[in-house]
Amino acid sequence: MQEPQYSAVNLEEKLALFDDHWSPRIVGRMNGHEIMVVKGKGAFPWHHHDDTDDFFLVLSGVLRIETEHGDVTLHPGEFFVIPRGVRHHPVAEEEVSLMLIEPAGTPNTGDAATAAEKVWI
Amino acid sequence: MQEPQYSAVNLEEKLALFDDHWSPRIVGRMNGHEIMVVKGKGAFPWHHHDDTDDFFLVLSGVLRIETEHGDVTLHPGEFFVIPRGVRHHPVAEEEVSLMLIEPAGTPNTGDAATAAEKVWI
Repeated sequence: MQEPQYSAVNLEEKLALFDDHWSPRIVGRMNGHEIMVVKGKGAFPWHHHDDTDDFFLVLSGVLRIETEHGDVTLHPGEFFVIPRGVRHHPVAEEEVSLMLIEPAGTPNTGDAATAAEKVWI
Repeated sequence: MQEPQYSAVNLEEKLALFDDHWSPRIVGRMNGHEIMVVKGKGAFPWHHHDDTDDFFLVLSGVLRIETEHGDVTLHPGEFFVIPRGVRHHPVAEEEVSLMLIEPAGTPNTGDAATAAEKVWI
């Protein structure tokens, strides 16, 4: 965990620091949650989180989140919260960039064995 | 509390629904936190929250958050999390629009007696 620094966090500048897909970077923390940015392209596997809702805000591009209760399409400036327990499957036809919020330590795949390691940037 | 609907929440569309300042509207919920949008202009009183960090993301305009540990200036696409207990004082020379996240029921002034009532839009 990093100590808070008294300076703005610029999401676009953070996104410029990496190019890989579906590998969230931590850029902030609040109330035990991590604020992350991620780039994605293509499909991320179906998964769910038993113990947490899942916040997605699109910063650039278009994200379709297929869920067991219907699909949600997000454009820049739009967010959606997947309720806990709901199976979902993010799909980006072209590259998308996102801000995510989840409790610290949440595996991005819903399963620690297959999850990406999250690092601070 | 509203049931989740399987559609995107567009922050700009929500902001177009009201014009008053420093009166947050609730637009989503995750893990017991409320996701809010607010417009502000001028200075909001100095306050702090004993029990919660305070997330600010600027959507338009410029926000200066004066804190007891220094000032932070935020432009669109920039966020900052005020750690719990830290006195702060948001100031917008011109109108600013923000996304905020706080635990449900947090008084925006740090004091229930003076807080704005938050409604869903």
